[in-house]
Amino acid sequence: MKTILIIGIGAGDPDYLTVQAVKALNRADVFFLMDKGPAKAKLRALREEICRRHIAPGHPHRFVEAPSPPRDTRPSDYRASVDELNAAKQAVFEQMIADMKDGETAGILVWGDPMLYDSTIRNLEAISATGNGQIALEVIPGITAIQALAARHGIPLNRIAEPVLVTTGRRLADGLPNGVDSAVVLLDGEDTYRRFAGANMEIYWGAYLGTPDEILIAGKLDEVVDEIHRRRSEARREHGWIMDTYLIRRA
Amino acid sequence: MKTILIIGIGAGDPDYLTVQAVKALNRADVFFLMDKGPAKAKLRALREEICRRHIAPGHPHRFVEAPSPPRDTRPSDYRASVDELNAAKQAVFEQMIADMKDGETAGILVWGDPMLYDSTIRNLEAISATGNGQIALEVIPGITAIQALAARHGIPLNRIAEPVLVTTGRRLADGLPNGVDSAVVLLDGEDTYRRFAGANMEIYWGAYLGTPDEILIAGKLDEVVDEIHRRRSEARREHGWIMDTYLIRRA
Repeated sequence: MKTILIIGIGAGDPDYLTVQAVKALNRADVFFLMDKGPAKAKLRALREEICRRHIAPGHPHRFVEAPSPPRDTRPSDYRASVDELNAAKQAVFEQMIADMKDGETAGILVWGDPMLYDSTIRNLEAISATGNGQIALEVIPGITAIQALAARHGIPLNRIAEPVLVTTGRRLADGLPNGVDSAVVLLDGEDTYRRFAGANMEIYWGAYLGTPDEILIAGKLDEVVDEIHRRRSEARREHGWIMDTYLIRRA
Repeated sequence: MKTILIIGIGAGDPDYLTVQAVKALNRADVFFLMDKGPAKAKLRALREEICRRHIAPGHPHRFVEAPSPPRDTRPSDYRASVDELNAAKQAVFEQMIADMKDGETAGILVWGDPMLYDSTIRNLEAISATGNGQIALEVIPGITAIQALAARHGIPLNRIAEPVLVTTGRRLADGLPNGVDSAVVLLDGEDTYRRFAGANMEIYWGAYLGTPDEILIAGKLDEVVDEIHRRRSEARREHGWIMDTYLIRRA
C-alpha cells in the first residue's frame, strides 16, 4: 500500500496553509514536484519556503522533480489539448509512484485547492483505478485565489442570497448566464473582463495574491478597465508570468 | 483605533484553521460570540475547542457573548427579513465595539469563510463607514464547507474547463441557468435536490462536514435521492439541527 496526499497549500502566502496541511507535510516521505514555465523558479522557491517553514526539523523527506509535460498554449482544440496534457501528467505521476517504496507516503503540493481547475485529483484517481498496486488517496483543501481575492479586498463574494458563478476567462467570453449577476474568473489569459466595458459592471481584481508582489485594483469596470489592463501587462512583462483572478458583477 | 479581525475558522474540523487564522486568534484581546438556535451549544463548544487548541497559554483574552437576533424562518419577504436581521446584528456588533478599549483587537470567528453567505463583512463595513471611531478591518479566509465536501469525497468541484455555480437552495429551485451543468448548493433547508430526480443528475452530498458526525453520500441522484432525504431527516431530528451542502450536476 502506498499513500498519496494531495495537499492544497493555498494561494501564495505560506500562512494560508491549514493545520491539516502542515500535519500532512509532516507525514510525507517524498514530495513530487512538477512545476513548469516561466513561473517555475518562483513557484519552486515558494514551495521550498513552505516546506522549510512547516516541516519539523529532523523529519526525513526527499523531493522528486519531474518535468511537467509541455502545453500547447494556443491549441486548435482546447479540450483535446487538456486531455493530452493530463494523459502525459498521469504517466509522469505513475512513474513517480512506481518508484516509491511500499508503505511510503507521497505529498503533492497543489497551489490553492486541488478541487478547483486542477487535474491532480483526476490524474491520481485514474492511476488508483488501474489497480497497479494499492493506492490510498487523501485530499487536503487549501485557500483558493478566490478566497485570497475576497479577503484582501475585504468583500463578500456573493450579494445577499444571490449566486456566484465560478468560471474561466474562456467561458466568461460567452457572457453571464441569465439570472447570474456575479462571476469570479480564473485562468483568464485574455483580459476577458474588457469585453464588459460599458455594461455597468464592477470589478475586484488581484494578481500574485498572498505574495509580496500582490496587486489589487477595484472599482467600476469602466473606470479601472484600462488601469487593470496596463498593470497586468506591465507585471506580466516584468515577472515573465502572471497569476490573477477577479470578481466581476453587475453594478 | 480599534482593530476587528474577521476570522474564517473553516468548516468544522479544528485542523482546517490556517496558520494565518491561528496567528489572528493570538492577536485578539476579545472575541465576539453570537451563536443561535438549536446548534448553539455545539457550535459554541467547537469554537471553544478551537481557541483552547490554538491560542497560546498565557495569551490573555476574553469572550463577549451577545444573543443573536431572532430570525423569521418562514418570512413572507425573504430579502426584507434578511435586511432586518442584518440591521439587528449590526446594532449588536456596534455595541460590542463601543465597549472595547481604544487600541484593542477583537476577533469574530466565522464558520467556513466570511466571504460566502455570511453577513459579518457587510455588517462591519457598515459600522466602519459610519465613522463612529476609527476601525481597522482585516479578513482572514477559511476552508468553506464546499472545500470540505470536495476533499472528503475526493473529487474536483468543476469538470475540466467548465464553470460551477455557487448558489442557495432557494435559487436552485429556479433550475440551473443555461450553459451551467454543475452547482454547489448551500443553505438548502428544503431538500431542493429532490426536484431534479429523473433529470439524469449526479450528487455529492455531505452533512456536519469535518466533524465526528460527518455523513457523506454520493451517486446518481435517482439512486441516492431517497437515502439522502431519509438520512438528512433522521440526522436533523437526532441533532436538532443540520448543516449540509452538495454538488449537483448533469451526469
